[in-house]
Formats: sequence, C-alpha cells, structure tokens
Amino acid sequence: MQGTSFIGYSRGAVNAPLTHAVNPATQEKIEPGYASPSNDEVERAVQLAHAAFPQYRLSSAATRAAFLRLIATEIEAVADDIAARGCAETGLPEARLRGETGRTVGQLRLFASMLDDGSWLDARIEHAQPDRTPIPKVDLRSMMRPLGPVAVFCASNFPLAYSVAGGDTASALAVGCPVIVKAHSSHPGTAEIVASAVIRAAQASGMPEGVFSVLYGSGVTVGGALVKHPHIKAVGFTGSFKGGRALMDMAAARHEPIPVYAEMSSINPVVMLPGVLAEKSVALAEGFFQSLTLGVGQFCTNPGLVLLPAGSEKEFIASLSEKIAQAPAGVMLNAGICQAYQQSTAATAAQAGVTAIVSQLPAAPGTGLPQVFVVPAKTFLEQPALCEEMFGPASLLVVGSEAELLAVAESLEGQLTASVHGTDAELATASTLLEILERKAGRLIFNGFPTGVEVCHSMVHGGPYPSTSDGRSTSVGTMAATRFTRAVSWQNTPDALLPDELKESNPLGIPRMVDGKRC
Amino acid sequence: MQGTSFIGYSRGAVNAPLTHAVNPATQEKIEPGYASPSNDEVERAVQLAHAAFPQYRLSSAATRAAFLRLIATEIEAVADDIAARGCAETGLPEARLRGETGRTVGQLRLFASMLDDGSWLDARIEHAQPDRTPIPKVDLRSMMRPLGPVAVFCASNFPLAYSVAGGDTASALAVGCPVIVKAHSSHPGTAEIVASAVIRAAQASGMPEGVFSVLYGSGVTVGGALVKHPHIKAVGFTGSFKGGRALMDMAAARHEPIPVYAEMSSINPVVMLPGVLAEKSVALAEGFFQSLTLGVGQFCTNPGLVLLPAGSEKEFIASLSEKIAQAPAGVMLNAGICQAYQQSTAATAAQAGVTAIVSQLPAAPGTGLPQVFVVPAKTFLEQPALCEEMFGPASLLVVGSEAELLAVAESLEGQLTASVHGTDAELATASTLLEILERKAGRLIFNGFPTGVEVCHSMVHGGPYPSTSDGRSTSVGTMAATRFTRAVSWQNTPDALLPDELKESNPLGIPRMVDGKRC
Repeated sequence: MQGTSFIGYSRGAVNAPLTHAVNPATQEKIEPGYASPSNDEVERAVQLAHAAFPQYRLSSAATRAAFLRLIATEIEAVADDIAARGCAETGLPEARLRGETGRTVGQLRLFASMLDDGSWLDARIEHAQPDRTPIPKVDLRSMMRPLGPVAVFCASNFPLAYSVAGGDTASALAVGCPVIVKAHSSHPGTAEIVASAVIRAAQASGMPEGVFSVLYGSGVTVGGALVKHPHIKAVGFTGSFKGGRALMDMAAARHEPIPVYAEMSSINPVVMLPGVLAEKSVALAEGFFQSLTLGVGQFCTNPGLVLLPAGSEKEFIASLSEKIAQAPAGVMLNAGICQAYQQSTAATAAQAGVTAIVSQLPAAPGTGLPQVFVVPAKTFLEQPALCEEMFGPASLLVVGSEAELLAVAESLEGQLTASVHGTDAELATASTLLEILERKAGRLIFNGFPTGVEVCHSMVHGGPYPSTSDGRSTSVGTMAATRFTRAVSWQNTPDALLPDELKESNPLGIPRMVDGKRC
Repeated sequence: MQGTSFIGYSRGAVNAPLTHAVNPATQEKIEPGYASPSNDEVERAVQLAHAAFPQYRLSSAATRAAFLRLIATEIEAVADDIAARGCAETGLPEARLRGETGRTVGQLRLFASMLDDGSWLDARIEHAQPDRTPIPKVDLRSMMRPLGPVAVFCASNFPLAYSVAGGDTASALAVGCPVIVKAHSSHPGTAEIVASAVIRAAQASGMPEGVFSVLYGSGVTVGGALVKHPHIKAVGFTGSFKGGRALMDMAAARHEPIPVYAEMSSINPVVMLPGVLAEKSVALAEGFFQSLTLGVGQFCTNPGLVLLPAGSEKEFIASLSEKIAQAPAGVMLNAGICQAYQQSTAATAAQAGVTAIVSQLPAAPGTGLPQVFVVPAKTFLEQPALCEEMFGPASLLVVGSEAELLAVAESLEGQLTASVHGTDAELATASTLLEILERKAGRLIFNGFPTGVEVCHSMVHGGPYPSTSDGRSTSVGTMAATRFTRAVSWQNTPDALLPDELKESNPLGIPRMVDGKRC
C-alpha cells in the first residue's frame, strides 16, 4: 500500500498532508495515509485519458470484453485483502464485503457479455436507393460510439460495486471510454487494492496508458477539477443530493456542458393497502423491518416513507414497534454519515405532528439505531421538509384516508423506487395509485421491498429528479451502456472503412436493424 | 385566420399589441396580426398539458399511431393553403414548401410505423428464479415511458418539418408526451394553418384536451415561461447558438433541471483529399456550389468550411469562383437572418489573412449573395473566431499542408456533419483524419455534401456541443424517440397490471429481450 494516486501506469507523489481512513467501529486511524494529487498530477491523468481515447474507443468489442473479464479475475485474486481492508474501513461485515466483491465482478462480466452480444450498439443499416425519385436515397448506417473520458466518483456506501471498479466504471470502460476515478475518503485502501487489480489487468491487456486512473484527494478540489476539465466528457456519481447537484451545476456551467449521471437521494415510498394489512400485518412489519435495517439502512433504496390507510395501520405499527424496540444499533459507514443521520432524524422528530413509534435512547458513538416516526397525512402534506431523506435506518409512516394518501403520492418528487403491497383484488382496482407511482419512480415493486437491486438487463436504478440528476438513465444493469455513448451515422461509406459492426457481411454476427427490420 | 394562440381546444384572446409576419421578398406586412398570450393563457396551456399527461401517456401505441396518421391527413388537406401562406412568409419557393409538407407528413407516418413496430420501446423481460441461491431472483420487466409535457420551439428555416407539426412534435406525441409549441414570429400564419390541422385531428381522435397547444409571442417571455414551468419536462429547439444556450442555462438552473435538445450551429467541415481534386475539381466545385446555395444556404447542414490541401486547391477554387461570380442573390428568410448574414460575412472578411475568392457588390435588401473566403491553415488555427457559423450561403476555404489540415480538423468543436472526398486509395490511408472527424461529428459523409437529411431509422442529425446541446441525441429520424422517454422497471408485477407490451403472452407481438435474448 503506497497511499498515492494512480496516474495512468505510474503513481503520484507523496504530497503532504496525508489523510487517513478511520475505522468506524473503533475510531482508529488506518495506515497508510493518502496523498492528494497535485494540480499537475490531475492534469496528467486527464491528458493521458484524452490521449488514450482515440485508440481505446476503436478497440474491438472482444478486446474490451477480455479486458473487463481480466479485471474481474484480478479482483477475485485479491478478495481476501479486499474483505480485510474493506471491513476495517467501512464497518460493514465480512459477508457483505465478499458479497459485494461478487456483485462487482459479476457486473464486469455482465458488461463483457453485453459486448459479446452487440445488441446494445443499436446497429442500423439502410441501403441506398439510387433510383428513388425525386431524390436518390443514400446508404446510411448508425451505431453507438463512446463520448470520451469519464470521471467516476466512488460511493461511500458501496466500497466495491459503486466505487473504483463498480458499475459506472464497468459501463464506461465497456463502451470505450477511459475512466478517471475519484476515490472516496472513507475507503482509500480498498480503492488502492482494487485500483492495483485494474491496472494489472490494463497492462496485461496492452491497454493504452491513461485508459484508467484513480485520484485521491478532496471531492471539491480534485473532483471539481475533473468535472470542469474540457477533456472530461461525462460524469458518474453516487452520493448525496448536495454533492450531486453541485456537480450538475458545475457541468452545466462549462463552456461545453456535459452529462452528469448522479444517483442522489430517494425516500422510496411503500404503500400498504387495507386488504393486505388485514391479511398479514405482522409479516409485512417483519419484511419492512428487514428492508429498513439491512446494511444499517445505508442504501439508496432504503424504504424511508410508508403510506398506511387510516383504520388499518394499528397492527402493523404495533408489530413494527416491538421489533424497533429490540433492534440493536449498527456501526455506520463514517462519522459524517452518522452525524447526518442523528441530525436528520432529530429534525423529523422535531416537526409538529410527528411522533416516534418507539422512543430511542442515544446510540453509542459511530452507531445508528432504527427510528420510525408516524405522522397524519394532512400534516405531511403541509410540511415539505418531511420529504427529505434520512440516510440510515429511519422511516416515516404516513397515515390517512385513501384520498389523502393519493394526494401524498402525487406530492412526491422523483424516486428510485415505489412499492405497493396489496391483495390481487385491491391491486386490480388501484389504477389511480399505480399511475401516480409509475410517474414518480424508476422501478415499481409489487408486494416487495425496495432494497436488493438485481444487476441485469431490465433493471432501472434511476428515476426522476431529485432521485437522480437524469431520470433517462440507470446506474445498475446493462441499460447503463447508453449513458456514455452517442449514435453516429456513416453515409455512403466504403465497406472497408466501416466499423466491423456495420459492414455489409456482418462479420461479428450481431443483431442489427436492416432497412427497418430487426435481424 | 384568427391570429391567436391555441390553448388546448380553445383560442386565446386578441391581446394588443399584435405582431405581423413580413413578406421577406416585398417587406410587406401580412395580415392578420398575431396576439401574444397572456401569462394566464400560458399557464392554462401548461395546466392542460399536465392534466392530459396521465391519460395520454397510457394511451395505446395504436391510438397514438392513428392520431399521428390523422394529423398527416389533415395537413395534406390544407397543403395549398400552406404553400401559399408559407411562400409569402418565408420567401421560399412553392416547390420547397410543398416538398417540406411532404417531408412533414412523411415524418409523422414514420413515427406511426415506429409505434406499430414497437422495437423502440426496448422492452425487456427477465423471469423470476425463486430457487436461485443465495438470493432468489425477482421477475423484472422494463420499457420506455414518456417524460411529460414537452415545449417545442419552431425553427425559422423549416416552417413545416421543424415547426408546429415537425420532427420534435412528432417524436414527442409518438412516445406519449403532450406538446406545447412556441410558434416562430417569421411564419405565424403557416403555424396557424398547421396547428388547426393538428387540433382537428386531436379532436376527431378523442385526445384529451391539452395534448397539443400552440403559443405565439416572444421567445424570451413566452418561451422562457414554458422552459421554467415545473410541469414542462423537456424542450426541443432548432435555432441559433445564442438562443439554444440561453434555454440550456434556463433549464439547468431550474429546481428540477430538464433536458434541452437544442440543434444550434454547425459549420459542417468538408475535407477534399489531393487525389480526388486531381481527378475532378470541376465536378467537386459544382457539387459544393449546389450544396452551399441550396435554400440560400439557410440549412444547419450548410457546408461552411472546406479543407483543401495546398498545391491541389487551384482548379477547385478557380471553378468555384466562376460560379460564385455568376450566382444571383436569394431572398433570405427574414430581416434578422439577412442582417446577421451580412454581419457575419463582413466579420470574416475583416479578419487578417482572409480574402474573398470573388468580390461581391452589396446585395439588394432582404437578399443574400453567396460568399466564399480563403485563408491559410496556419492563420485559421490562430483565429478561433473563424470557426463561427455564417448562417447563409457562405463558406471558408482553409488551405494547408496535410499536417496543418489535420490540426485544423482536431481544433474544431462538435459538428452535425463532417464530409470527406477522396479516391478509394487515399481514403484507405486516411485513418487518422477519419478518426478525428468521427469524434467531432454526428454524421460522417463520404464523397458527398452535407445538405439533404434523410428522415429514417439510421439518421443522426445531432453532434457534440455546440452543434447541439446534447450530442447523445438526434432531431431527425426515429432515434429521436429516446429523447422524450425514460426506462421504467416493473418488479414482480401481476400480469394483468403490466402494460400490454410487457405481458407474458406478448399480445402486441413486439420484439423483446427475454432472459437476455432478443426475440
């Protein structure tokens, strides 16, 4: 462990002052300290990425797929180191670190298989019609091409799956974009272990230097320098609303504005209908409690809002209260998140009309206790601050009439997910509610809870603002491939000069649309 | 002709002052005058669109396809009125108006056929695996859904194909978004004729009121009010860089930033290689001259920059000079465009090192003469102002060594198109040049000129900033469907509650990806 940035294939200097990760369970500093890159080092990483782009973007899909698979292999080879260092830096249990490592290498391999398949390119061919009147038709072919170097910000709550070699990096590298990662200050050592694995894979695969760099240092200065740099063409971010919006504003103010894909904040409403509450309030309370407390509630899909029909809520709340009263406090990811959790739950508790279903004693330093509040729907509608996310194992139960709960649903801003629990019969007559929820969210869940995000082809882990900066995209699954690409058309191009994907003989055998028909 | 806005199915009040279209060929006012909508009328149009959205977005693809086809029929029924009024308002010849009407109805029908086909939805299904370990796999299905009400700004230079019922309107209505059009002050009467046709089609199809409105008035006040309104979810614009950037900044500063698809400015570089110049300079000069002067040069794809290898340029320039010297002046679209053309060409002429290949006398009021300038590549590289668009029949020839011309190509900002003329042999060895041009443009053209934009599945009429606000999209062709949509996932959803497109039995018979395979 060297404690310095990865500037292409070399390492940054040991610039003072060094910053250390802190074990959130013990509050102890973890060696080594990490150096912030100098302005020159940031510039060098960007210039290397810019220089690597013309070659990397034209590399074959097979080359990039092999590169992604080798990254996965190299990460698996250091899984023990990742688990040890990751647990120390995040306070998460070893099983979670190992599971998240599996998800991370699975993501890399899923994007590799997407490259093998080729349908993500949306390759289209329309043949010339030289005899068409009044104007001859030209030969026109199109497919996706990468945007350019991408800046990726690591997430505090996913040290692997949304960090150095996480989803954003995998999707950007897959489509042909060099990546510069801004490591998270909470888990720099985990970042170093994973970055070393990626660099080994890049060198062994003969990738141009600059296809991948990792920078330590401050989000504001180092991260800001990346987002403002003319050679950076897109940004991937998972984190707070404040951080995400700052990057959006920075990117929009550039001479050349660039897309920012920020996954920011969501309270993930869960609606319980009366019939299902009558049938199984205890089981619903158990399922909700598990979802609420998973990973000490530190998931973007944590269920932060529950809509309960007045008159049907009592058994659910009573059962949930028992569980909350017995729940242990959990170690939170870092001191900042822990402090923000105490503040946001205290702010909710202080709002008029809000009561805690269980009064909690203060938690031990660095830890968070589950907290659930209840408020009448009418009060909720009058206090917009109650929509704010409490990042951690906290949720707000809103109780009201059917009409009031529809108004609550309609009042919500964009969400990553919306969940509905109901019997078949009551879901069949809930079209107004379902229409509202679908308009608000990226993923609509039936009789389930929002935590647990499958990495696959049909996952949308995105949603209208402010859950993300750009509801048109997902940060999980293969649909993320379109985030770092744009379509390009080739007109009347000699066959030999076309990308293989568009050559007449279809040498790669990929699915294409030819003269309007998919084949 | 009433001279008032279309607020859903009613008309706006005749608020003074009225503004008139001016016949650019005669400078005469054309009756009637047009009223700007009041703030209340703008608000009402937006509220109607917002209220129409929940119903319209869930309408079937067949319903929307029939609506688009009926709009086309209604427009064809008033083609004579359009031609007469359009010629008077734009100074364009009747054949152009009739041709553009044909393109407009063709676009509407192309989007209808896209709806019939259904592949644009990118429907994906992944079945549950309840026995998967360690975690069961949920059933997950995804497809595209519309964003919400869209504000569309009419283009000065396409009174039909990029105005009231043009490409942006067609793509937004197709995918399920209500549209509010801001009419262009140059051709309000043409807008009224087309708007009446759309409204007739909407009423006959039983569309909810508010699915379509057209507002007159100022781009800054009325247009600005639309772009800032919380219920507007996306913007389509074709016009100047200044106007487009203003909308981008306005949209990015909103509480909820929204996507702006602005097609703005492009100089569409054309590179001529030495071999092809040796073979056919005269034919190239003729082809270039036709592309330059088509529609008095008032196309976004006008070839405003030509790169010529030093030593091979003489015959091309001599032949082009003959044509330019004999070319008549053409009536330009409006006084503002004509004045801007005079100013931008004068600014280019005044730059050190720039010479006109033919000295032109001042053109008659309201008209523009073709103007072509020449500059050494070295000088061009030192004067960034020479990259600015001269909207109209003007172009700049840049002459230099091969290395200098590569540097010129690399210095360019984003473009809608880039064209290369070369023999087969020289194109085969031009990989460096082709790699640069592909990075800069949305469409790469071989041995052709950029004007003439086919409306089809594989057209990209877009390109990196500043040619557009968002290089990830196209404003022409069916790929535009993705601009006003976002993917939504449904998890563990009862079959009856799924959209037909995602039901297990595939009742609509659309192409889908099922468990990772296209079928």
